[in-house]
Amino acid sequence: MILLLGATGYIGEAFAKELQRRKKEFIPLSRAQVDYTRFDLLLDFLKAKSPAFVINAAGYTGKPNVDACELDKAGTLLGNALLPQTIAHACAAAGIPWGHVSSGCIYSGAKIFENGSVRTEKDMSQPAMRALVAQAPQNIRGFTETDTPNFSFRDQPCSFYSGTKALGEEAMSGMGQSYIWRLRIPFDEFDNKRNYLSKVQRYAKVYDNVNSISHRADYVKACLDTWEQRAPFGIYNVTNPGFVTTRHVVETLAKVLQPKHEFEYWSSDAEFYKVAAKTPRSNCVMDVSKLLATGVKIRGVEEALEDSLKNWKPE
Amino acid sequence: MILLLGATGYIGEAFAKELQRRKKEFIPLSRAQVDYTRFDLLLDFLKAKSPAFVINAAGYTGKPNVDACELDKAGTLLGNALLPQTIAHACAAAGIPWGHVSSGCIYSGAKIFENGSVRTEKDMSQPAMRALVAQAPQNIRGFTETDTPNFSFRDQPCSFYSGTKALGEEAMSGMGQSYIWRLRIPFDEFDNKRNYLSKVQRYAKVYDNVNSISHRADYVKACLDTWEQRAPFGIYNVTNPGFVTTRHVVETLAKVLQPKHEFEYWSSDAEFYKVAAKTPRSNCVMDVSKLLATGVKIRGVEEALEDSLKNWKPE
Repeated sequence: MILLLGATGYIGEAFAKELQRRKKEFIPLSRAQVDYTRFDLLLDFLKAKSPAFVINAAGYTGKPNVDACELDKAGTLLGNALLPQTIAHACAAAGIPWGHVSSGCIYSGAKIFENGSVRTEKDMSQPAMRALVAQAPQNIRGFTETDTPNFSFRDQPCSFYSGTKALGEEAMSGMGQSYIWRLRIPFDEFDNKRNYLSKVQRYAKVYDNVNSISHRADYVKACLDTWEQRAPFGIYNVTNPGFVTTRHVVETLAKVLQPKHEFEYWSSDAEFYKVAAKTPRSNCVMDVSKLLATGVKIRGVEEALEDSLKNWKPE
Repeated sequence: MILLLGATGYIGEAFAKELQRRKKEFIPLSRAQVDYTRFDLLLDFLKAKSPAFVINAAGYTGKPNVDACELDKAGTLLGNALLPQTIAHACAAAGIPWGHVSSGCIYSGAKIFENGSVRTEKDMSQPAMRALVAQAPQNIRGFTETDTPNFSFRDQPCSFYSGTKALGEEAMSGMGQSYIWRLRIPFDEFDNKRNYLSKVQRYAKVYDNVNSISHRADYVKACLDTWEQRAPFGIYNVTNPGFVTTRHVVETLAKVLQPKHEFEYWSSDAEFYKVAAKTPRSNCVMDVSKLLATGVKIRGVEEALEDSLKNWKPE
């Protein structure tokens, strides 16, 4: 039996759906049933039910976006740093392996192959970077699991959300048997206010940048596969291999869905941060080599994007 | 045997000294011996040594003052929120009672008895408040343990330090057998850069405000007494009963120590925060009734202050 925490969230419900599809027995535990933020209550539950594996899809993301986390620092810290530490402790005490939904948003930028070596470029939004994406995309590399997060409380500026997600990884690392599965900007074919493709359609103006992104069902399948295939415990970037510019997403979307309105873009980063955003945003490219090397399969980002748009289900 | 964490810190060394005086066997565990920030290592140690009680005097205070915590958010969170949660979990799993050095700095202001009822005044530094201190000090009451912290991530603005201390209390509450001992502005007769009476002498200018304060040896004695006398587990404000204005401290200090220099004051809060401080400071009055009701004794603030100055030991 698998214990699923946060089953009603955007990622948690995808885990529940995939576990059902795989005919895996699981308990979608709610905090109303057992307050699993309390170590003693969670440990008692683990000892009583002895799940084979625990999935933590609970966390605090901020609604409608990460700016909300700046206003609820206690909630953000409790959900993203203290909760994973609590689960890590309870699972370690009970000897149960587990996996945690983390985020690639603890990075900013990409790694650039240039003149025979690789450098880190923290700001993906610069015109120079956009030119590089247009002219030499093959030189853009993603962050690997051995790269230290560069958008965290240890490497500021960062958003409060990103800071707490990086701290959550620290709080659970080096202890027990655990997977850290890093998601980035979830999307799929189901129109939803949490879906990147829905958000892009509803923004008054689009903020053009470069990112790796995660198809929601692809993500949970790959996560479950790491456990089912007994990949070594540790950190895994779980995005669809490759990256996209927002402009490319918008153009693909316009071509496939043919929406009635024209898309507008923010004229500059300065305008975006002045008008639409309060806290810095992570935009980053992730490297998925480690995941793929385990034998776990995941579609390329272009295929996942086009497939989602071709099968688009309006809300 | 008692396990003492953070034994080399300013408060930890006072615990060590008092335990020696009481001829209590204790282990002053360092992180170099056992990394007690790791739940699994701490739990193993607790199970192997079975201490009767654990004292956590480890934490992150920022040097030379709380402004430093704004620059090391990860360290501040790890030391003040994630560490107490880790100790709480390990002690709960091992069934061992413990006490935690917390801080009264999660409050700002005082409670004012006025027109037959009590109101909270968050800003102690207003001229009106100073007048009240001068004219009707009997109307100034302290915060009790049932008052919700009003200088925390849940009630902003606050310093990052205060936010993490309040979160640390939340992270350990309602679980296991534990004391939360709230300290405020430690001082005693030993000249030291952490000693309030040393700080006041070395400030270029003094920031005049109203506070409850804790004589260091009185504090650790009272903390140990709660455990030795088996007071009910829970939160205790542990300051010398009463409060002082900085101006009164300076005048007493000038009278007893007769320093050569004249003391100057910041002309206003605005000047202080513009020139000398980056993050908001907690200034507050604490109520010690709960501690005293257990039968634990602690000197009044005036006696502790004069005694410290009369026995002053320059560094």
